[in-house]
Amino acid sequence: MRIDVLSLFPDMFKATMGESIVGKAQDNGFLDIHVTDFRDYTTDKHNHVDDAPFGGGAGMLLQAQPIFDAMAAVHEQTKDQYSRGRVILMDPAGRRFDQDYAQELSQEDHLTFICGHYEGYDERIRHLVTDEASLGDYVLTGGELAAMVMIDATVRFVPGVLGNMSSPMGDSFSNGLLEYPQYTRPADFRGMKVPEVLTSGNHQKIREWRMKESLRRTLERRPDLLKTAKLSREQEIMLQDLKLEQDPNAPE
Amino acid sequence: MRIDVLSLFPDMFKATMGESIVGKAQDNGFLDIHVTDFRDYTTDKHNHVDDAPFGGGAGMLLQAQPIFDAMAAVHEQTKDQYSRGRVILMDPAGRRFDQDYAQELSQEDHLTFICGHYEGYDERIRHLVTDEASLGDYVLTGGELAAMVMIDATVRFVPGVLGNMSSPMGDSFSNGLLEYPQYTRPADFRGMKVPEVLTSGNHQKIREWRMKESLRRTLERRPDLLKTAKLSREQEIMLQDLKLEQDPNAPE
Repeated sequence: MRIDVLSLFPDMFKATMGESIVGKAQDNGFLDIHVTDFRDYTTDKHNHVDDAPFGGGAGMLLQAQPIFDAMAAVHEQTKDQYSRGRVILMDPAGRRFDQDYAQELSQEDHLTFICGHYEGYDERIRHLVTDEASLGDYVLTGGELAAMVMIDATVRFVPGVLGNMSSPMGDSFSNGLLEYPQYTRPADFRGMKVPEVLTSGNHQKIREWRMKESLRRTLERRPDLLKTAKLSREQEIMLQDLKLEQDPNAPE
Repeated sequence: MRIDVLSLFPDMFKATMGESIVGKAQDNGFLDIHVTDFRDYTTDKHNHVDDAPFGGGAGMLLQAQPIFDAMAAVHEQTKDQYSRGRVILMDPAGRRFDQDYAQELSQEDHLTFICGHYEGYDERIRHLVTDEASLGDYVLTGGELAAMVMIDATVRFVPGVLGNMSSPMGDSFSNGLLEYPQYTRPADFRGMKVPEVLTSGNHQKIREWRMKESLRRTLERRPDLLKTAKLSREQEIMLQDLKLEQDPNAPE
């Protein structure tokens, strides 16, 4: 997969995307990330990429020209090897990013992220994009961190990237439920003990405990997820038990 | 405000948090970010910070000991000048991060972020934290990017950080609505023109156009926000007009 990023802060990407799993994915050839500083494409003689908004108001807006020309250059560099792919603009009004969206993007051979900065961008930049995406209902100083988050969550689904680690399908959300609590050594850490079942060696009991704790945590903290989770008959019965534990007077 | 981060990848923070507005906030003394590599606190002779899960299963879990001891060291370093503050663990089951949460965190004098990595962490680490936070329903390879996103969104609310730029209260979400479309020069970019009203010089018309477009975008793309937005009488009337434009047969 090729990922292009249009950003005024290319150094942010070099450090962050070079580490950890995303870095390894690049070393192993699963991923090829290119960052283009769109300031290099401005035709402004002072190298400005922003200007004041028409109609007045505070703040500066990114101009269309540097972004349009940087996009054209990316297309020229990549067209022989990759499709034009999806072009993603981070926008609070965009489609909410989630695990399904990440998996969908991971099927593409080419993604381009446009990172805004300053107070906003010229509306005409939207003509370039296929996707407007939002991480959540909060505002960031720039699109860079948001793009990095989307890249990180997406490349985990690219075959081979997680290597020998367990499949991303085992994550929270991928089976529609939150993960069960996990423990590692020591069994007694400063008086805090691991639940006995986990050291029992009884695999059937461990499996059931984990299934039930996963359901319990989801019921307590994200009951909304249970509406869409596909539960087995065994899970349905456990969930019923958990609801009765919470409220013995609840109707069955 | 002091921010501590416990992470195995301190270089990711140095590059990213040194740039842009977060970097300027540090230069100007509004913000003091310290990253502690908790591997420095492991008592394991091979410097390992992770181990296999009790009860079996793939992946490695972060152990409690290095995190507990790194937290104790942070507290020792900061206790004379700062409160213990909020200690935040990124977790998919946590409270959904949003603009209100960012504003709430911006009131604190000290925040500590614990960044997990690998497949997960020992459940007992939760005893250290005051907040479990989630960016959204997706899974990242580590907590670092999530912590950076929360730091970025939060420090924008720290007085002085945005300097002469417009207040974060003007952002999308802060007034409960999405932002109106914005345009900057040129007025005609490759045949794509700025709406005439914005170049009219009529400030009353511009104000009304922006208010209406902000409502229109919110109605079209995030109607859920309208349920909680506090609208003026003028906005209520505009919204009614917009609904009639969309569906002339809708009941008033």
